[in-house]
Amino acid sequence: MLKIHGIGPSPFVRKVRIVLEEKNLAYELKPIMPGAGDEAFAAISPLGKIPVLEEDGWTMPDSSVIIAYLEATHPDPAVYPVDARLLARARWFEEYADTALVSVIGPDIFRQRVVGPAFFGKDCDESVVRTAIDEKLPPLFDYIEGELGSNDYLAGDFSIADISVVSMLINMAHASELVDGARWPALAGLYQRVVERPAVARLIAEERELFQRAA
Amino acid sequence: MLKIHGIGPSPFVRKVRIVLEEKNLAYELKPIMPGAGDEAFAAISPLGKIPVLEEDGWTMPDSSVIIAYLEATHPDPAVYPVDARLLARARWFEEYADTALVSVIGPDIFRQRVVGPAFFGKDCDESVVRTAIDEKLPPLFDYIEGELGSNDYLAGDFSIADISVVSMLINMAHASELVDGARWPALAGLYQRVVERPAVARLIAEERELFQRAA
Repeated sequence: MLKIHGIGPSPFVRKVRIVLEEKNLAYELKPIMPGAGDEAFAAISPLGKIPVLEEDGWTMPDSSVIIAYLEATHPDPAVYPVDARLLARARWFEEYADTALVSVIGPDIFRQRVVGPAFFGKDCDESVVRTAIDEKLPPLFDYIEGELGSNDYLAGDFSIADISVVSMLINMAHASELVDGARWPALAGLYQRVVERPAVARLIAEERELFQRAA
Repeated sequence: MLKIHGIGPSPFVRKVRIVLEEKNLAYELKPIMPGAGDEAFAAISPLGKIPVLEEDGWTMPDSSVIIAYLEATHPDPAVYPVDARLLARARWFEEYADTALVSVIGPDIFRQRVVGPAFFGKDCDESVVRTAIDEKLPPLFDYIEGELGSNDYLAGDFSIADISVVSMLINMAHASELVDGARWPALAGLYQRVVERPAVARLIAEERELFQRAA
């Protein structure tokens, strides 16, 4: 049985869970809070990050590495394109989401509006959220919008590129911020297409319940 | 003809060049200084980072994405393991080098000792270098040493794992710091084995010349 060490609302854990659900793979989620000083977890995650995959005692950290491993061991249905250039493009958008998007959405929006108030009794600094929405995110969304153009997905068919970008947008949605469909119609359309997939909708519903219990 | 936009002493550019040389692929290096406000470069590198690969007008940023593309299009000789778990392990060490190692070796050692003095007329702050060598790097090296154990390479045969880790160590060597072979014999041995490869030795010699011209 596959195990995923992590917590649902992490965009990196969600990436992996979406792939597991899309591939119809059974797995168990082992809750772990990163940075909580858990020594057993530090041993399997040298950078202290979630998620970590566990399979028959073998462990592997890093969402991108885990997903590539799942694709290699359970290729059908595929979440990476076959064509070499499309595959590179998909991996690039995964990297873009996992570095550029998360660096704004994580600390400035999701942590301010959700994690701080719900788990650390901290008030949200709305000026940080506004700067993120009004100044930091628009150039990143402009770039993705331009790359999407009139296509439904970022790299051919639905792929890890779309999963990675939308996973970050789901954290924004949990913080009550949606992509402005008037300004970025292609990106807002991509978001809608991905969150309507049964595998993704199930996970979002589960995460919402978690927040409601914490509130 | 393949083109690589970047400069030789970047550990990420070097990773890609080592792979190109190991695969005997002809390429042209197009010098670009990241952060120099070059608009044409910004258009092909949305995060402003080097290297960027160019092939017949098609471009792709990110060293890890580029190397995976080169492996897909020019598989022989391979720089990734075939076995799925070894492949995951190799990708994990690539990520570890590209995040954990570079975050210390880049700003605290290479920028202090080499880039600042040679290119920006800035004196080196030796206390920053000492803290990096004495405190920040040892736990990272301990981890790699333990993972290497008595093996010659990190993930089976010579692979992208070894290229990525040693590329960072080469920046340390340019800054006159070598891995302490008494404390980390396996890692020092790995370094020696990789820098003696003709492809790698050629690149290091070329980089040294660059620094001598700048000094």
